[in-house]
Amino acid sequence: MLKVWGDVYSGNCFKVKLLLKQLRLQYEWIHVDVLDKETRTADFLAMNPNGRIPLLETETGAFLPESNAILHYLAEGSAMLPGNRLEHAQVLQWMFFEQYSHEPYIATARYIVRYLRRPAEQEHRLQDKMAPGYAALAVMEKHLASRQFFVGERYSIADISLYAYTHVAAEGGFDLAPYPAVRAWLERVGDQPGYVCMDG
Amino acid sequence: MLKVWGDVYSGNCFKVKLLLKQLRLQYEWIHVDVLDKETRTADFLAMNPNGRIPLLETETGAFLPESNAILHYLAEGSAMLPGNRLEHAQVLQWMFFEQYSHEPYIATARYIVRYLRRPAEQEHRLQDKMAPGYAALAVMEKHLASRQFFVGERYSIADISLYAYTHVAAEGGFDLAPYPAVRAWLERVGDQPGYVCMDG
Repeated sequence: MLKVWGDVYSGNCFKVKLLLKQLRLQYEWIHVDVLDKETRTADFLAMNPNGRIPLLETETGAFLPESNAILHYLAEGSAMLPGNRLEHAQVLQWMFFEQYSHEPYIATARYIVRYLRRPAEQEHRLQDKMAPGYAALAVMEKHLASRQFFVGERYSIADISLYAYTHVAAEGGFDLAPYPAVRAWLERVGDQPGYVCMDG
Repeated sequence: MLKVWGDVYSGNCFKVKLLLKQLRLQYEWIHVDVLDKETRTADFLAMNPNGRIPLLETETGAFLPESNAILHYLAEGSAMLPGNRLEHAQVLQWMFFEQYSHEPYIATARYIVRYLRRPAEQEHRLQDKMAPGYAALAVMEKHLASRQFFVGERYSIADISLYAYTHVAAEGGFDLAPYPAVRAWLERVGDQPGYVCMDG
């Protein structure tokens, strides 16, 4: 059976859980506490030398880290990953955008507020996340202004990837009020068959 | 014909050029000067709202940003992208590792030194890049200690992706002497058929 090491309140881990539920795949979830440094133990580093969650163990015992690579592995052959060459690359485009231009700001701001409880010494770092985080939201808003989903007008793993931290962006202090297309898209994702909440 | 907007001395752009050369594809290269803010003009933002290079225009006129998504698009169907489901995901795993755990440190340090000419006010930011940059190199060293290439013991776009900034890491102040497996792998990549230098 598939195994996932993760924390359901981590957006990167939630991506994997949401896709597993929507694909109706059976899996075992092993909780990992990042604050307790459980990703830095010798046992965990033997499975993922980069010391991060989520981590998937496939049916054949291979370990696969990186949330978006896991989404790709699980979605291949399903309607969640377009087979068309350009659309396939566009799904990856938005997942790389998520990891480079979105997650380091929107997810990290939430981490500072929710996990670290917004210590004074992190306030400057937190404020530095705001402008690039809003820039990422502006790119999403422009793209979604004329579209229902990120790629090919169909729900895909690109949407799951960007949904994960966008739907909890307020927990990091981001105000989505000026982004109506983003808010409408969040609702569309939440209405997809098999949708579950982070703690669902 | 394929068109690429880029700067050959940017590692992210070099990835695309190296693959195009190795696949023997014809293309037009349009130079973009980031310091002159040519990625922030209205014309450029109309092609890529995220305002970054490289940017590919496909044969059918579609615009595709994100260096690793471009590599995937160009390599699909070639020996540079494994068709096997797990290996395909592992190629993506290393490309996501590159964009999240490697490029923001090793490429940004080089940018501060080479492009910005190491201004005093960036010294603290530059120093902050060192430890995570070396952590990424350590992950690579461990993986390559028992392997010739990153995935499936064959040269792939995962190698191109990680090669781009690793082979110029010294320009950002990183010392590769303690990473013999990384150095041997850099030589192997440099020996691949069709290899070209950044300015080649």
